This record gives sequence, C-alpha cells and structure tokens, in this order.
Amino acid sequence: MRIDLNADLGEGFGPWTMGEDEALMQLISSANVACGFHAGDPLIMDSTVRRAKALGIDLGAHVGFPDLQGFGRRRMNIELKELCAMVVYQLGALAGLAAAAGYRVTHMSFHGAMGNMAAADAELAGPLVKAVAGFDPQMIISSSSSIAIEQAAAACNLRVATTFLADRAYDEHCLLVPRGIAGAVVKDPEQVRARVAQLLQDGTVTTLSGKRVAVNAQSILLHGDTPGAVELARSIRQSIEGQGGIITPVSQLLGS
Amino acid sequence: MRIDLNADLGEGFGPWTMGEDEALMQLISSANVACGFHAGDPLIMDSTVRRAKALGIDLGAHVGFPDLQGFGRRRMNIELKELCAMVVYQLGALAGLAAAAGYRVTHMSFHGAMGNMAAADAELAGPLVKAVAGFDPQMIISSSSSIAIEQAAAACNLRVATTFLADRAYDEHCLLVPRGIAGAVVKDPEQVRARVAQLLQDGTVTTLSGKRVAVNAQSILLHGDTPGAVELARSIRQSIEGQGGIITPVSQLLGS
Amino acid sequence: MRIDLNADLGEGFGPWTMGEDEALMQLISSANVACGFHAGDPLIMDSTVRRAKALGIDLGAHVGFPDLQGFGRRRMNIELKELCAMVVYQLGALAGLAAAAGYRVTHMSFHGAMGNMAAADAELAGPLVKAVAGFDPQMIISSSSSIAIEQAAAACNLRVATTFLADRAYDEHCLLVPRGIAGAVVKDPEQVRARVAQLLQDGTVTTLSGKRVAVNAQSILLHGDTPGAVELARSIRQSIEGQGGIITPVSQLLGS
Amino acid sequence: MRIDLNADLGEGFGPWTMGEDEALMQLISSANVACGFHAGDPLIMDSTVRRAKALGIDLGAHVGFPDLQGFGRRRMNIELKELCAMVVYQLGALAGLAAAAGYRVTHMSFHGAMGNMAAADAELAGPLVKAVAGFDPQMIISSSSSIAIEQAAAACNLRVATTFLADRAYDEHCLLVPRGIAGAVVKDPEQVRARVAQLLQDGTVTTLSGKRVAVNAQSILLHGDTPGAVELARSIRQSIEGQGGIITPVSQLLGS
Repeated sequence: MRIDLNADLGEGFGPWTMGEDEALMQLISSANVACGFHAGDPLIMDSTVRRAKALGIDLGAHVGFPDLQGFGRRRMNIELKELCAMVVYQLGALAGLAAAAGYRVTHMSFHGAMGNMAAADAELAGPLVKAVAGFDPQMIISSSSSIAIEQAAAACNLRVATTFLADRAYDEHCLLVPRGIAGAVVKDPEQVRARVAQLLQDGTVTTLSGKRVAVNAQSILLHGDTPGAVELARSIRQSIEGQGGIITPVSQLLGS
Repeated sequence: MRIDLNADLGEGFGPWTMGEDEALMQLISSANVACGFHAGDPLIMDSTVRRAKALGIDLGAHVGFPDLQGFGRRRMNIELKELCAMVVYQLGALAGLAAAAGYRVTHMSFHGAMGNMAAADAELAGPLVKAVAGFDPQMIISSSSSIAIEQAAAACNLRVATTFLADRAYDEHCLLVPRGIAGAVVKDPEQVRARVAQLLQDGTVTTLSGKRVAVNAQSILLHGDTPGAVELARSIRQSIEGQGGIITPVSQLLGS
Repeated sequence: MRIDLNADLGEGFGPWTMGEDEALMQLISSANVACGFHAGDPLIMDSTVRRAKALGIDLGAHVGFPDLQGFGRRRMNIELKELCAMVVYQLGALAGLAAAAGYRVTHMSFHGAMGNMAAADAELAGPLVKAVAGFDPQMIISSSSSIAIEQAAAACNLRVATTFLADRAYDEHCLLVPRGIAGAVVKDPEQVRARVAQLLQDGTVTTLSGKRVAVNAQSILLHGDTPGAVELARSIRQSIEGQGGIITPVSQLLGS
Repeated sequence: MRIDLNADLGEGFGPWTMGEDEALMQLISSANVACGFHAGDPLIMDSTVRRAKALGIDLGAHVGFPDLQGFGRRRMNIELKELCAMVVYQLGALAGLAAAAGYRVTHMSFHGAMGNMAAADAELAGPLVKAVAGFDPQMIISSSSSIAIEQAAAACNLRVATTFLADRAYDEHCLLVPRGIAGAVVKDPEQVRARVAQLLQDGTVTTLSGKRVAVNAQSILLHGDTPGAVELARSIRQSIEGQGGIITPVSQLLGS
C-alpha cells in the first residue's frame, strides 16, 4: 500500500509566518506551495522550493484568488478568461523559481474559495483545468473528490490525484460534507488517525450518516496551520508505516 | 543593416490603460512586457503574449520593483536574495503565460529604478543577471549600454542586446546622460529621426558635448507612453527601411 | 428648481489616469472621490480634495471593495464586520485629507459591486449605513433609488440624496433596469438631455415600458469615464440653466 | 515620577498575526497602531481601537511606507508631496475608525524606514510633521530622540513625546546607535530592566562608550514582536511601580 502525504505550505507573507513548515516538510511526500496571490511571496516560495528539492518531495502549486487580506477564502466574481490567466501566472511563477533551483513542479491544486467553486461547478472547472493543461500537459491535478474536476481533467488528459481529508466528514457520494453542517470537521486526533487506518486497511471511509463507502484516494491532505499539526502528521506517518504502508510522492504513485 | 525595434508594452493595470499597444505592436520587432509588479496584470500579459505571437515578434519580460503605485520608478532597498526571487517570479509568470499560448520568452530587461540601479552597480547587476541565467541560460538581456550589465552577462554566458535610446542624450563613454541634466531628453521628433539615421549610416551618436562616438546597438528602444509615440515609431521604421535596413527581432539578430 | 450635478472622480491610480477630472469638476456641484480601495491613491485624493475646495463644490467619499485590479466591480464575499471597518477606513482617509486641506466631506456613496449589493439587500445596507452614521451623523448618503438604502438611512437619521442616472433606463418602481437587459443604457446624448429636461420640468422619467413615473431625485449623476463625458456634462448643465434651474451642491439642497 | 509605557500594536494583516497584542495592551498606557500600509488592516485596526478604548489607554497612529511585504522597513524614494498625502491618509483612516468607536487618536509616530529617514533628515521631517499638524494641531509626535523631528514639531507648535528604547544603545548625544554597530541592541532582559531603573532614578542612560548622559524621555517604548515581550513588559511595569513610578498615558503627561 503506497500513499502520498501532502500539505499546504509557504503560507506566510513578508514578515508574517504561518504553520511550522520546516517540521512538517520532514514528514510529508508532497508540498502545495502558495504562489503569492492568497499567500506566499517570491522569497518564501524560493526557500520552500529549495527545501522541497533538498528533501526530494514533490512540489505543487497552490493557486488562489488575488486576495491576501482574505487569504483567498472569499468568493470573488472574476471573469473566466481573467481567472485562467491568473492561474497560469501563478503556475508559471512557481515553475520559474523551481527551474532556477534545478527542480520542477509536479502537481497543482486550487486553494480556498477558488477550490470550492471549481469543485462544485463544471462550467468553472472545465476552463480552469484546460488552462492548467495548456501550461503543462504533464501536470497532476490534486483535488478532493470532485466530479467536476475529474471530468475536466479527463477531457484534457490530465491525471488527478484525489486527496483524502482525514479531518473532514464525507457523505455517501464520497464528497466532503460542507463545513457549515454539524460534524463536518473531525477534531479528535484519535479519530483522525482511525480514519487514516481504515482508509489504508480497506479503502473505505465511514460517512457522517454511518455508512461505509469506498474511497479513491492517492493522497492524504494534512492541514499545516492548525495547532498540533506537526504532531498529528507525525502520528499519521507512523501509523501508515506501522501498517506497512509506504509514503510516496504523488508523481511516483501516478507514474507518467 | 539589420536592427531590432523594441518597445515597453502591457503597461496597463486592471481598468487602466497606458500607451497604444495595438498600433505600436504593428511597427516593432520585439516587445518588453510588464510582469505585474510595476505594471501589467495576468489578463493584460496574456493578451499581449498572444498578440506578440500572432505578429511573430519577440517576447520579452520587463521586470520591476513591486510598486504599482510608483510604477517601479522609486528606488526600493530590497535585499539581494529577495530581489533575485522577485525577478525570477516575474520571468516565470510571463514564461508560463507564453507556454500556455504556445510561445516563448526570448529576452528580458530591468525596468525603471531597478534598471537604473542594476546598470550602475556591479554588486547588484551580478546576482540579478545570474538569477536570470539560472532561470533560462538562453535568455537575452536587453539593456542600454552598461558595463555592469555586460560584465555580469559575460560571467554567466548570457547574450546582451544593447538598446539605443534615440530620444536620450549620450556622453563620451556612450552612456546615457541622466535625466536631471539639461539636454538629456531629445524632444524634437525630427532630431530623433536624424539620430536613428546616423546610427544606421555610420554606427555613431553625437554626444551632448558634440563629439561623434561609436555606438554598439542591436536594438532601438521606443517609448510607448509618450504622445505621438506611434507616429514617431512609424516614421523611424520608414526611415530604417528607406535606408535599406531590415527590422529584425533581437533573437534572430543574436543567433543562438 | 435646484438640482445637484454629481460625478465620480479621482479614479486614477499611481501612473494611470481615468476621466477628464479637471474639465468635469468645472461643471459639477458635487464630487464623489475614490478612496484608494477600488481606485484612487493618497496623492490623487489630495489634489482632488484641494480642487474641490477651490471650486467650492461638495466633497464625497466613494467607497468600494479592496480590488484595484477589478475596479471594485467584482462581488466579494466579505464578512459584514470587516466590510464596515473597510468603509469607515476609507471615509476616514478622505476626511483626513480634507481636514488637512481645510475642507470637509459632506456625503458618501457605495461604489460598483458594493453599491449594487447594498442597494438590493437590506441585511447589508443596514450595517453599512450604520457604520457611516457612526463615523459622522451628518453624512449624506448619495444613492440611486433603493428601498434598502433609504430604510437603513432612516433608521440612523441619515439624510439621503437620491441620484438620477440620466443615461440608464428605469422600471415602474423607479428602480434602475439591470445592465444586462436590452435598452438598459441610454447611449444617445440627445435622449440623455431630453430625460434631464423631463425630470426638471415635471419630475418624471419615462420607463423602459413607456410609462411616465414620478422621480424623487436631488442629484443628477454623470459618468466621467465615458467618451464625450465632458461635452455631455456641459450640455446638461446648459440645459438645466436654460430652463431656469440652479445647480446646487447636495449639502445645500438637503440643508442640515 | 510619571512615565508612559508604549508599544507598537495591530501589526498583523489578514490571516496573519504578530505579537501578543491582548496581553501587551493590559500592561501599557499608550498604543501605536499600524494603519494598513506596512501592517494592519481595517478589521485589525478596528478591534485594536476598541480594545484601547476599553482599557482607557492612549491611541496612536503608526504610519509607514506602502510596503506590506517589506513591513515598511525598506527605504523607498517617494516624493515629499506624495509621502505627506500617505501620512495624512493613514492618520485619517485610524481617526475614522476611532471616531466610529467613540474614541480619538492622541499621538502618532513614524514607523521603520520612514521613521529612520525622518529622524535623520530635517528636509524630510519638516514637511511630514507639518502635514501631521495640518491634519490635527493637537496631535502629539512620538519619537525617539531626534533633533530633526523636535525642530520640525517646534516650528508647527506640535508637542513631542520622546521615547526611550530600553533595549537599544545610545551615543553621547543621546541618539540611538545604529543597529549595524556591535552592542547596538541590548538583549539581556536583566540589563534592559536596569536601564529602565536608571532612567527613572536619575534620568540618565549609560552610553555605549560608558558615559552617563541625561535623557529626556516621557515614554518607554516596548517592542511587541520579540520573544518574551510580554514578560519583559510585565517586569518593566512592576519595576516602575515598585519604584513609586506611575504609568500614565502620554496625552496626560504632556497636558494640552
């Protein structure tokens, strides 16, 4: 059983930091790096790229709305053509820093409000994913389970790495239960670990309503900005390895 | 006699426009496109890239300080490592949009205060040019005559395209006379054309002090944001072609 | 018959200009000045304030979303408490520049997407208008006809100056026909002038469906960023004065 | 012996925090609040203002360069007229939020690179301080010892509160030793406390060269963003009160 451990990183800006990137990067196999629109700046991106290279973990672009103040979590009504250009701009910026460091971007994901909107709306997912493919036909899309994203990627011959959010409840279609609903977020670390173990053992998740449904996931997404994130990451990593799992960067899992 | 005609373009931002890009792009052989830090945004960059491709003209990245309000013309005291990351970020962003459009970036230049500072300071030019080479060893540096830039480029095996500013006075070392000094800017279009003719005919410029000195220039830089810029560009173009000159993109002039 | 002539001004940013502010300010009796979030910057605001003082016209704050790139025209999902703080920040900034120039802000209006959202949503209009009243209980709200804004202002004892948009179609409730609908924008200058004349003569507008309905308006809003704006403003001004109307700043119309 | 305890606060931005504002505000008598240019945003400013009001401590505007990424610590070459407008814009924005909260701004200080430049250059201090006086002739300027600032304030009839930086070395003219020089920063908390005690007891500081010179200071400036800042503030407060000192907001110290 091989699986990727993935986290959102490089989410500081200028003098401000967020999350314990250095510790977390020791534990994961792929990083999603903020590209300067919702978080991150060239200097932070550069050092995150170089650290990813030194550790040999996969490097991904985490693209978001141009809204530092709102951390890309506020919906913005941006016309599709402009939004696609914003996505490619961010991909290119990170790829540029990677090239200068002798490394490369293997995957990308949509952050925050842009991610929520794209996952739920085929009219949006289609053009966005097509823009990604236009930039690099080898790019892997990293996404929580979403029909819109999967269909859009299939239409462009892009590979998708589906992420499992161990601290979020799922419904019977294996989609995330929206945050507003009671029970949507799993806060107990013990339960989070149990969910990871169940995924590894029989490839299922128990839904909020109590059913066991099959999960298709190549990657487990860790949240770096919650208290105790590093500790939780460490114990998930140990739990995977204790069960004989091999933590593997997403690009190796999906081949090419 | 082959020479490149070059202009700074894509200098709008959001709802604001600057210069008559469409008309000017018909007349030039290479474009320097603002990359979102001192001007430009992803949408403007995207359409400028596509227009450059359609016209078959060279595409360059015009990188600047992160200061939209000051148009990159205000000196900023940014640490070298961060400044290098900012330069690569901008190069990557434009290269990303070019890749998505099936095109490529051939050259780059430093804008405004960053350009003035780099041209005058080997301590700054060295690392900046090295960062460019790290991003793409094929990149051409487009610059007005500067020993600091030329030495930095030579040290990295990068090619330099020296630009001639037809509307600016030169001193006896073939360097630009600073704007503050009387006579530094040539405002009469007739004189500007005469200076271009002289450059083409015998490869010289007459300095502010009245001497005739040899000029090494592969490119003539037009300023797009001055009134009458399109008209002046048209007449310079006609004047070059009238003398049997061939307007040629800078990447073809320098070979590879 | 006294009426205010009003326009949105100071909508440049850094090196970029928009509209012919100097010419337009000669013709109007009140100005709405962008406050740096969707357009405008401290220097532009400062010179617009000083010009308004020199001309003796009313000074208003035009507050918008923090989105220069989108000119405040894109809906953003900002939490109410934060949005209220953004509105007060902008009001204070302009009031500060006015105080330093020995002048004062008489009125305010909500720009672009924020304006459209507030005009249509009492849940939004209420807190926003209350925030304005908390900043200055003498502030006049300038708005196109909107029940939400009017009720919110009444609840805070704020005065409202209703603006008439001479180049936009109205429905039978005297509300603006949304831009998407055919005929929503009146493009013929002759017709625009006729609509102003009708308003002055019998206080009515002819709706898109052809009915004549009463209009309550203290102010006519001119758009400064359309071609021919100054010419149109001049002819509207002449038409008002030709009919014996007196162009009067909104603060004088509403008394205190 | 009455003295003000003062700290820079509200230095987060959007999702990012800096310093332990809540704990620190319990210990000080006046706050300098970042105004959105080098740090801070309307929401953070609003809650800092309301907390200052609840605690009854003085509210000050901490104005800086428009450079979030560089935290206002990078020199920028901004023309005087524009810089003055930026200062007034920031003062007005905070004053607006204060007015809406039923409170008022008593003092202001220049942050980071702007502060260093103004303190050392009468040509800059003069117009900046005059702009402050134009905004509010009652405003107190809070500054470390600087002849340029003091003369500029005297010329405008503004009061100055001189701050003592307990963790910085002084020279024989009672000016701060620049950070670059060895010994410029006092890192040992014990020593910092001893310097505060000496100031309170005999109104002197021992210079880097070992001389005892008289200090004119109405306020002790604490740095909130260093580790252990709250603990240090608490022990300085206790030390002052243990010696019979009374911690007093700067506006009460200077009268009006």
